[in-house]
Amino acid sequence: MRLVLFALFLTASFFSFGQIPGLHQHPAERAIRFPDLDSLLTLTADLHMHTVFSDGSVWPDIRVQEAVRDSLDAIAITEHLEYQPHQSDIPHPDRNRAWQVAEKSARPYSLIVIRGSEITRDMPPGHSNAIFIEDANKLLRDDPVEVFKEARRQGAFTFWNHPNWIAQRKDGVATMTGLHRQLIADTLLQGIEVVNDVTYSDEALQIALDYNLTLIGTSDIHGLVDWQYKVPEGGHRPVTLVFAEEKTPDAMKKALFERRTAVWFDNTLIAREREMLPLLNACITVEKAWYNGDSPVAYVTLANRSDAHFVLENLSGYTLHEHPDIVLLPPQSSLTLQVKTLEMKEDFLLKFKVWNAVTAPATHPVVELPVALDRG
Amino acid sequence: MRLVLFALFLTASFFSFGQIPGLHQHPAERAIRFPDLDSLLTLTADLHMHTVFSDGSVWPDIRVQEAVRDSLDAIAITEHLEYQPHQSDIPHPDRNRAWQVAEKSARPYSLIVIRGSEITRDMPPGHSNAIFIEDANKLLRDDPVEVFKEARRQGAFTFWNHPNWIAQRKDGVATMTGLHRQLIADTLLQGIEVVNDVTYSDEALQIALDYNLTLIGTSDIHGLVDWQYKVPEGGHRPVTLVFAEEKTPDAMKKALFERRTAVWFDNTLIAREREMLPLLNACITVEKAWYNGDSPVAYVTLANRSDAHFVLENLSGYTLHEHPDIVLLPPQSSLTLQVKTLEMKEDFLLKFKVWNAVTAPATHPVVELPVALDRG
Amino acid sequence: MRLVLFALFLTASFFSFGQIPGLHQHPAERAIRFPDLDSLLTLTADLHMHTVFSDGSVWPDIRVQEAVRDSLDAIAITEHLEYQPHQSDIPHPDRNRAWQVAEKSARPYSLIVIRGSEITRDMPPGHSNAIFIEDANKLLRDDPVEVFKEARRQGAFTFWNHPNWIAQRKDGVATMTGLHRQLIADTLLQGIEVVNDVTYSDEALQIALDYNLTLIGTSDIHGLVDWQYKVPEGGHRPVTLVFAEEKTPDAMKKALFERRTAVWFDNTLIAREREMLPLLNACITVEKAWYNGDSPVAYVTLANRSDAHFVLENLSGYTLHEHPDIVLLPPQSSLTLQVKTLEMKEDFLLKFKVWNAVTAPATHPVVELPVALDRG
Amino acid sequence: MRLVLFALFLTASFFSFGQIPGLHQHPAERAIRFPDLDSLLTLTADLHMHTVFSDGSVWPDIRVQEAVRDSLDAIAITEHLEYQPHQSDIPHPDRNRAWQVAEKSARPYSLIVIRGSEITRDMPPGHSNAIFIEDANKLLRDDPVEVFKEARRQGAFTFWNHPNWIAQRKDGVATMTGLHRQLIADTLLQGIEVVNDVTYSDEALQIALDYNLTLIGTSDIHGLVDWQYKVPEGGHRPVTLVFAEEKTPDAMKKALFERRTAVWFDNTLIAREREMLPLLNACITVEKAWYNGDSPVAYVTLANRSDAHFVLENLSGYTLHEHPDIVLLPPQSSLTLQVKTLEMKEDFLLKFKVWNAVTAPATHPVVELPVALDRG
Repeated sequence: MRLVLFALFLTASFFSFGQIPGLHQHPAERAIRFPDLDSLLTLTADLHMHTVFSDGSVWPDIRVQEAVRDSLDAIAITEHLEYQPHQSDIPHPDRNRAWQVAEKSARPYSLIVIRGSEITRDMPPGHSNAIFIEDANKLLRDDPVEVFKEARRQGAFTFWNHPNWIAQRKDGVATMTGLHRQLIADTLLQGIEVVNDVTYSDEALQIALDYNLTLIGTSDIHGLVDWQYKVPEGGHRPVTLVFAEEKTPDAMKKALFERRTAVWFDNTLIAREREMLPLLNACITVEKAWYNGDSPVAYVTLANRSDAHFVLENLSGYTLHEHPDIVLLPPQSSLTLQVKTLEMKEDFLLKFKVWNAVTAPATHPVVELPVALDRG
Repeated sequence: MRLVLFALFLTASFFSFGQIPGLHQHPAERAIRFPDLDSLLTLTADLHMHTVFSDGSVWPDIRVQEAVRDSLDAIAITEHLEYQPHQSDIPHPDRNRAWQVAEKSARPYSLIVIRGSEITRDMPPGHSNAIFIEDANKLLRDDPVEVFKEARRQGAFTFWNHPNWIAQRKDGVATMTGLHRQLIADTLLQGIEVVNDVTYSDEALQIALDYNLTLIGTSDIHGLVDWQYKVPEGGHRPVTLVFAEEKTPDAMKKALFERRTAVWFDNTLIAREREMLPLLNACITVEKAWYNGDSPVAYVTLANRSDAHFVLENLSGYTLHEHPDIVLLPPQSSLTLQVKTLEMKEDFLLKFKVWNAVTAPATHPVVELPVALDRG
Repeated sequence: MRLVLFALFLTASFFSFGQIPGLHQHPAERAIRFPDLDSLLTLTADLHMHTVFSDGSVWPDIRVQEAVRDSLDAIAITEHLEYQPHQSDIPHPDRNRAWQVAEKSARPYSLIVIRGSEITRDMPPGHSNAIFIEDANKLLRDDPVEVFKEARRQGAFTFWNHPNWIAQRKDGVATMTGLHRQLIADTLLQGIEVVNDVTYSDEALQIALDYNLTLIGTSDIHGLVDWQYKVPEGGHRPVTLVFAEEKTPDAMKKALFERRTAVWFDNTLIAREREMLPLLNACITVEKAWYNGDSPVAYVTLANRSDAHFVLENLSGYTLHEHPDIVLLPPQSSLTLQVKTLEMKEDFLLKFKVWNAVTAPATHPVVELPVALDRG
Repeated sequence: MRLVLFALFLTASFFSFGQIPGLHQHPAERAIRFPDLDSLLTLTADLHMHTVFSDGSVWPDIRVQEAVRDSLDAIAITEHLEYQPHQSDIPHPDRNRAWQVAEKSARPYSLIVIRGSEITRDMPPGHSNAIFIEDANKLLRDDPVEVFKEARRQGAFTFWNHPNWIAQRKDGVATMTGLHRQLIADTLLQGIEVVNDVTYSDEALQIALDYNLTLIGTSDIHGLVDWQYKVPEGGHRPVTLVFAEEKTPDAMKKALFERRTAVWFDNTLIAREREMLPLLNACITVEKAWYNGDSPVAYVTLANRSDAHFVLENLSGYTLHEHPDIVLLPPQSSLTLQVKTLEMKEDFLLKFKVWNAVTAPATHPVVELPVALDRG
């Protein structure tokens, strides 16, 4: 509790610094942090959000500030094309306007601001986001399929939004339609939200796997990120982790088309095995391992370099001296396990099912951690 | 480890509650709370703020939500009349529009939304807020004095904003001008901000005292209240405490004209003695007083029913058994002092200078607390 | 800045309260709290601890104060019979002395202080606690079996301590011996620690199940509970939950002989199914369930009346709108799930595997929660 | 709050580390930290405490662990000579025993353990501590003056304990007696507690000033430091700051005889001006000062390198842009003031009365901080 107090005093001093122009630093502790993979960067992106330019409640600069505070690498501004409840106040003749304002406001930062639009139709096809577009105005077409085609002409990456939305699917069950099959077949649709705001959909995940769609998770924020996700209490917005060759819009777009993503939602990681296993292996590593004297109980220090509070089921074949088969590995920290190896080993394998990681509905990955014991 | 999880997932549970329609409750701990006086209500008001309808960064509904979370009784929406940097996006032909949107958004709550405008001129007269106006459009006049006159015609209460603003007074020193004297003489100006945003002005306070102006403190918020005042870390926006006969716009306006206010800023109360003493006497009370056995050391339990963390200098003439002459009295809590009364008394007087209360520049009030000792 | 001060000086005010005689209240949040069962009380007990009267570092009154702060129902004082490292300073001729001091110190509270002794031998039989004894002095015998017999003569409940202790079992693997089989057969040993201090033993749990022993978890505290279990940061000592007919020593002893216990350790519950299922059903209840409009997504509010932060795997056959198959249910709070029931139901069954509850090595119970939907 | 969470997670990982033998580190945040003076070390010492060897509730090793956690430089073990309520359990024939146990337990640390005894008599002379003694047993004399003489023969530094103790002075008013005057005149008494446990005495401070006694503040702890001073909530025990030439027992003793001390008690510093001013100047420094553009409002960053949360009254002759005349400077952090210097200066002087520092009853020191403005 003393530590807590200390933190608050720090805050008190930030107060005054906050008034000094040019000082943009924000507390690192709300930053969303996952480690890079061996050969790819792990970029954090929120690809769905609104401002006053459609039905959101903030000017675009607040979206930029929220992203900077969250240390995101990229955001996409995705105003509704067809839904403009503020139009009597904000005529919004140029549908690129929100992006322009956000992009300008983001220039002092390394944040990438992606131009997008939300195609806002009844189901089917429901709502979809086209991002990496060139001109939102050209997407204002009557025929929804024509909108998708125009987006493709502009080189956009397009994904199906909240297929589980109760307003469009009373039962909350994401369900494939003929139109969606057609859009996919015609390479007009590449991704699907398995997470939107506070919702998650097993059925959307299954559709993604069945139809080879990119997994997307977004905030779809209309109000304030801090309030909606209880950021001061430790919450976080959903983001898409994009595994890209470099931090550029082109590299991100390529990664999205190649389905190199994971979703980070409410302490849960969602990804295909192809992305999940390298991500978990980057997050969880063996820092150190040793025996004490002649007791064959191995001390193994695991490091967690991610924000995930991992829920691990021990499948190693060895029991633990201080835990049952379930071990909680806190975020951004280390934990030393005592593994009863029965005899002194030079190396062995730890295996954990990661229950707060999902690779398919009700399916969880297994991470393997080779342990080499220190000599001397 | 339990608290860790507890903290993390309390959040998770808030999440879900957040989705239930009709549940508007917010953590009581950010509410700004001061007790009522004997015969007057203590209303909390933020009388200066901006939205996208002038140079702010939020839609008016966010201003309402912030005020509801802070448990304010009233806010005034005060867009700049003459400064409209968003005009190319928001033509804003009806200058009452921000108020209309806010007022509608506030209907589910007991929050009073006051119609106002910021008269935005070079110094003199600098910026001023006219609140309780009837039609902002009629204030769009070239001659600044005409604007003040129109405001008065509409029955407005008008106050001078941030007279210490460095952009208009390089040295930060609030300074009277001939024009301001004239406005006051002509009953066109009734108040002055002694606190604006994170600034406080001793010189503005002196002007208020010299010219009989109402003391006002406001946030002048353009961005987000939570960020600007570090609300999650325990900060609060500046507010004006208005001592009114009832919670109605008319009673508030009457109180403002009669200078019945105090300002609550960064753990500091600022008021005339006339308001300060009853306020302090409502905040700080003697809950209980007794002797233990035959020792003439009196136990006196003080209650603090306010958000102020009082810094008290003991002027009682008795020394304390557990404190030097400075005592800190925490907000919304109780503290038992041990007073060395030298002999057993039936009653005595505690006197404290309240260092975090200001009645004039470098002048602090003295609160007197009669203590009657319990029998038996 | 306010919260900072608030936190700092809350302390200051506690200070003064702390000096008032008769005020024994401690922060409720460190209390260890589990609900009673339908027909049995759930008593919290720490049945293994040391003071300066063997190798501990505190006078017995501190053990009582720790227990009062933790809101325990009972503690057993269990000094080593054969290990007396402080003997040159504390001759300790009457081996009941620590209990006498603790018992006297506990009289102002409702805490039960049980008389015990730790029989401290090489393996086998290793260490064992005899509790509910009448006279510790009579246990001072050379032959260990004679000690167990004397304990039985006194009506004691006796359990095997830390069978996984590395100092006596290098590999940390609790292992049955001939002597233990004999003690059990002769009704001289009734229980076994599956949890001791920060350790847990799957092998001890299996022995308990195989040999019909009472499950025990204890702190075996020698230093300070607050430090060893990081209580200020939210940690807790291990305790045995004893399901007794009333809060009396006799009822507790009866419950222990009848194996009516669970162990609460580091956010994990360990018990036989016979005790685990009623305990989980007392902890987790359905508070409320309803549909919103004509959407067949049921809102189900679960209440958790325990300190456990439950890790639940949804086995209900319905997917959830806001969670994957893993749901975390925070301690002492509520959580509303949205269950996709596909059609409007009058009732249905929620089923969860409880991963942080253990009924056998790598075996976790399933809790069933019948849900009846509200009408209107 | 996220920061808070992070801190708690860290804790969770400490848990496991805590089990690794040899790892003695404790959270720095509870350390009591004041900066060294220009030419003297600032050593933190608690010179009055009890264990089971008189009427305390812990073995001496706990006193060492508490001191290590508080990062103290020195403690004195001061059992009552004449009050031995545990004697039937702990015969205590060698009155140096508690010190011997503590000293041995402190060997892995840099903590100095001073040998002392509390001379425990009715008033006068009341209780006194003789520290830096050679053999406590020789202090067991009937005539109290003979005890003081023996202490002096051993080279002890001796101070009057809690002269304000209500059990010996019903009115709590420390009062000089003929016997004390004689002890001082005979160089048998050199110091006086102005702070003991949770009490402070203006009258004792006046006696110290009148009779040229060393100022001492101690915990006189009998139970647990963490509980008595709410350490987890941010509280701290009282300590004497000893300004010594080096960290050795001899240098400390010399400093005590030369009255080079301050007392740190409940956010208050108590010292003579001779020690107070260098201490405050070491605590509070000007880190940086600059003007922004052509505004003569100077930004001045103050650093506070101490644990004191300073309550400063601005006596500089300049008003502040963000504060009234009272400024709170949080512990171990920085704060930037905006000083209205009226014209651009090359340098100026900040002056603050430090209200939470006491140099005589109701007397507070003034700290002067020369400010040199940055060029460019």
